Amino acid sequence: MTKHLQRDLDAVYHDLLSMSTVVEEMIDQAALALIERQYELAAKVIAADEAVDRREVKIEEECLKILALHQPVAIDLRRIASVIKINNDLERIADLAVNVAQRSLSLDEFLQFPVPQKVSRMVSLVTQMVRGSLDAFVNLDTSAAKRIMSMDQTIDELNVEVIGELQALMQDAPNLVVPALHCFSASRHIERIGDHATNIAEDVVYLVAGDIVRHKSIESRMH
Amino acid sequence: MTKHLQRDLDAVYHDLLSMSTVVEEMIDQAALALIERQYELAAKVIAADEAVDRREVKIEEECLKILALHQPVAIDLRRIASVIKINNDLERIADLAVNVAQRSLSLDEFLQFPVPQKVSRMVSLVTQMVRGSLDAFVNLDTSAAKRIMSMDQTIDELNVEVIGELQALMQDAPNLVVPALHCFSASRHIERIGDHATNIAEDVVYLVAGDIVRHKSIESRMH
Repeated sequence: MTKHLQRDLDAVYHDLLSMSTVVEEMIDQAALALIERQYELAAKVIAADEAVDRREVKIEEECLKILALHQPVAIDLRRIASVIKINNDLERIADLAVNVAQRSLSLDEFLQFPVPQKVSRMVSLVTQMVRGSLDAFVNLDTSAAKRIMSMDQTIDELNVEVIGELQALMQDAPNLVVPALHCFSASRHIERIGDHATNIAEDVVYLVAGDIVRHKSIESRMH
Repeated sequence: MTKHLQRDLDAVYHDLLSMSTVVEEMIDQAALALIERQYELAAKVIAADEAVDRREVKIEEECLKILALHQPVAIDLRRIASVIKINNDLERIADLAVNVAQRSLSLDEFLQFPVPQKVSRMVSLVTQMVRGSLDAFVNLDTSAAKRIMSMDQTIDELNVEVIGELQALMQDAPNLVVPALHCFSASRHIERIGDHATNIAEDVVYLVAGDIVRHKSIESRMH
């Protein structure tokens, strides 16, 4: 890899990690808005989305410039293709954080509604998954990526338990149907954040495995 | 553009449209499973997902080959970057069709549950949006892309109406809470298919506009 390509790749990785930091904060704030009813945070999350959209466009432009300028091949080319996809995932995760923030605002009229405790455990896990998947990508760390993929099952199980609690609430008290549905949606959005982090982790495994496959095919051609 | 690049681009577009045809069929079948209780179709949708995953990998590999081999620039480079993203969207749409199929199976125990009529209108719209967004991409048709983006609002409105109907059902009959939640999830999945089609349409607008911006900046440098 040339020095210039290395420098430009480092820059785009830096921007991607920095975007991820913003997105993780959005998830945390949306969760606090939902669980601890800190509504002013919901407005912050909704306002932050535009800056994330701009970051996404900037990162994609950087990727296209790297492709046009350095014409990378093999693993470097795969890395850039992964950045394009991960960038897209991060932007969607930000959208989901906005959706959670919006649901928290809809719960505003239902101050006494008990948001299930497990939602807060889900949020803490998906935030770790987002950060972990980005780190696994930057370090090409397949084991870390696989750990993240396995966390997704825990999220899904927690989501099922949350839905169970909400179902019971709705069956007992029809006046709780509306807030429970808002909460149900929020829980689903959080679960989908986990899905996106899992997609990123899968990309990492594929990126590393794809490279091995490529090497193998080159070796086999040489024999 | 060289003849070889044109040929390889045509091939990848062909594969993308063919994948889209499969994915659209999955949406239709999942919808029939849900609305008309044709459960055997749900199994078909779930089984079809693996082939879509393989298509996704193949298309991404084609894109990487084109980048490495032809080192396209400008609009051709943007096109390939868009294919990478759209390919990803189509795979997620297939996952959502699988989710709808799974919800339809969960409704199996609740044969008398009335799935709101509007769900079927939503499905018909999102299938049009998926096909339309792909056609808009292949033809770089910004007006068609914008029409698709405007359809998303109708989907969101229908989804809100469906949720309203389900809320009313649950408030009136606690024994309908469980099937109504399955239906609620299915409706959300369908709405998200619309979101993905909208993302594809937005890519088209950005692809065409980005090109104009690029031309403008070249012109301004020339003056």
